[in-house]
Amino acid sequence: MTAPKFKLTPLLKLFSDLKTELKPVSGRSRVSVNSSVNRIFSKDIFAKYDNPPFDNSAIDGFAINEETRSISRNFSLLEGLLRPGFSSNVVLKKNEGIRILTGAPIPCGTTRIIFKENTKEHDQKIHFVQEDYKESNIRFKGEDFKKGDLLFKKGNQIRITDLPVLIGSGNSFVSIFKPLKVGLITTGNELNPNIKKQSESFIFDTNSVPLKTLLGYWGCSIINIEAVGDNLELLRKKIFDNLERVDVLVTTGGVSTGQEDFVSQLLNREAQLINWRIAIKPGRPFICAKLGTKYIFGLPGNPVAAFICALIVLRPSLGRIGGEKAWFKPLSIKTKANFKKYKKPGRTEFLRANFNRENGFVSIYPFEGSGRISSLSWSNGIVELPEQEQNIKRGDLVDFIPYESFF
Amino acid sequence: MTAPKFKLTPLLKLFSDLKTELKPVSGRSRVSVNSSVNRIFSKDIFAKYDNPPFDNSAIDGFAINEETRSISRNFSLLEGLLRPGFSSNVVLKKNEGIRILTGAPIPCGTTRIIFKENTKEHDQKIHFVQEDYKESNIRFKGEDFKKGDLLFKKGNQIRITDLPVLIGSGNSFVSIFKPLKVGLITTGNELNPNIKKQSESFIFDTNSVPLKTLLGYWGCSIINIEAVGDNLELLRKKIFDNLERVDVLVTTGGVSTGQEDFVSQLLNREAQLINWRIAIKPGRPFICAKLGTKYIFGLPGNPVAAFICALIVLRPSLGRIGGEKAWFKPLSIKTKANFKKYKKPGRTEFLRANFNRENGFVSIYPFEGSGRISSLSWSNGIVELPEQEQNIKRGDLVDFIPYESFF
Repeated sequence: MTAPKFKLTPLLKLFSDLKTELKPVSGRSRVSVNSSVNRIFSKDIFAKYDNPPFDNSAIDGFAINEETRSISRNFSLLEGLLRPGFSSNVVLKKNEGIRILTGAPIPCGTTRIIFKENTKEHDQKIHFVQEDYKESNIRFKGEDFKKGDLLFKKGNQIRITDLPVLIGSGNSFVSIFKPLKVGLITTGNELNPNIKKQSESFIFDTNSVPLKTLLGYWGCSIINIEAVGDNLELLRKKIFDNLERVDVLVTTGGVSTGQEDFVSQLLNREAQLINWRIAIKPGRPFICAKLGTKYIFGLPGNPVAAFICALIVLRPSLGRIGGEKAWFKPLSIKTKANFKKYKKPGRTEFLRANFNRENGFVSIYPFEGSGRISSLSWSNGIVELPEQEQNIKRGDLVDFIPYESFF
Repeated sequence: MTAPKFKLTPLLKLFSDLKTELKPVSGRSRVSVNSSVNRIFSKDIFAKYDNPPFDNSAIDGFAINEETRSISRNFSLLEGLLRPGFSSNVVLKKNEGIRILTGAPIPCGTTRIIFKENTKEHDQKIHFVQEDYKESNIRFKGEDFKKGDLLFKKGNQIRITDLPVLIGSGNSFVSIFKPLKVGLITTGNELNPNIKKQSESFIFDTNSVPLKTLLGYWGCSIINIEAVGDNLELLRKKIFDNLERVDVLVTTGGVSTGQEDFVSQLLNREAQLINWRIAIKPGRPFICAKLGTKYIFGLPGNPVAAFICALIVLRPSLGRIGGEKAWFKPLSIKTKANFKKYKKPGRTEFLRANFNRENGFVSIYPFEGSGRISSLSWSNGIVELPEQEQNIKRGDLVDFIPYESFF
């Protein structure tokens, strides 16, 4: 394409505008931790209980009460076995011991737990035959966290790895921001939702399902709004008819400067523009605006551009609107370029890329045009080339963002 | 802990045993692509249509028919605008041109599409004022893929990024292996499912919800089986009562060598053992076996060990049983150790780790004991230390697996 005749907003400027403009809009709700993953905490979370809730044994062995450590000590073995799930009234006096299983509450008077393997039993006595490690082998009450401890902060996203702490701290229900209701509107006469097969003028809509899947991964509720073709009146009607039902509208297509680019025409005229036309490739015509209290994000129509733009711009934006405190930043790793490329200055480029785990090299899709949807399937992530001019040689380090970072 | 008195299976040996023993068990079904993500293709997928389905314009501009390229050529401008979604009967003769929008089928006779910005219109003529790029700006029919092309191979997992190609190639329904039905049984008297708060002997079950969430992410259907405490008869009954309903059983706890470790006792006596006791930390007592035609995986009871063992061993195993051709291998990246550690030889260690994206250093959780569930929440991945002896110094490169690799 030729150089644009209009000014493009650098990506970092777009991000800083969005950070300023976008505000959390969601109400709060309370959900079981079972369905809390990927949601955003709407309150700080404190521990309701200590963890562990009581001193308990970390091993199978003997709980002993010893005066000082030495390897030749004998202990009188008390009757019984202390098992997890049962509290006991056993009190160990000096130089007494008792059998205990992992997880069982330790008896009163325990100084440490010793491995069976390091002892011999004889005549109702336990004899050390080998010195034990220095550890007490006791999991102490509250050593992991204590009742009242701040565990999670409002605005953080809940991850699978947070579930054990939530459950173990007595927070089996948590306060979250309600999922954003996102309405998706596709434009473009070439997308006829009623066609069942390709024809000489229609194409399949390869945007809706991937975008809805992404929105689902990001914890949004999807409000179905039909396709509107390239029809300004229908677009306006669908937008205004649905504005009350959604928190956010996402559109595809119609964001360039052409005579039938109705999304950008309408938003420029009737909405409070946040930004339009970004110095990124793909995704240059991206537009975002506010209509009343609702946000609207116009993605390009091209499926590759729409998808990548959704990952790069929509994901952090929805996070912020949905109550996420930190601006989402995908995990990026340094990989060796398996390609040469001259990149001109003035725009951030996102290249569909395939990272080879075996040799650490990353390749880029051989065709630049973003019309090729195979490139998404071929790639396992994106190479991000920053705004400045670059002359990348084979072996140079480049930033690779695995797709897993976004899902 | 002390050195074990029994032989441990190296992790790679376990993997090679599992690769041999585990066979796909799932039947096939056909689902809409809308709900196909993370499923496994049960058939090769071929394109039913070309993509693009017809030659179309990649830009807004003029379709022209030129004899040879030169910058001073004029073209007679035909009436009309070619729009996406409409086929036309226009035929361009030599030195004719017509307005065209992105995505519109190109008219017969088009040699290329030129940018409006590089031309002037005057007197029903288009004049070049500046040379265009060399590209034709035509997206040619079938340039992405052609009808009949093999797009995806049986046994591959379906990713979000595959959806555009599936839809665009006319494969809006796909054949997949049916989701594995996985029954989860927790053991341990200390897990009383009826308690609502911590007590002096019970603890909350911090295994079930995280494991079910993982299984859900991995595309499994979860069959609920209650907790069985530490009761060999109840365990046996629950296993055999549910064997017909599941493809796979997963248990937690009861896999060590203690007198109440009933999972390992039962599997050793009554099942066809695949492996027991692995040279990994955490997760050493892991056991896997076959009961009739069903597979059973015994995870440790400790929540941290169960979780990490699920990621490392269960994920690839379920993939294979579920029809995945490649043995799942998580994305691992080289990061700089922000710690010092002597690691003894003979076992693979998985350390809960926090990778700092800003400085590229990875830290490990300061407490080794796997009783601390906070460590999961604190970490954003795992450092994997291979079997051999290692003396890691600050700044050494270590393998870090981000948790995102597993979800």
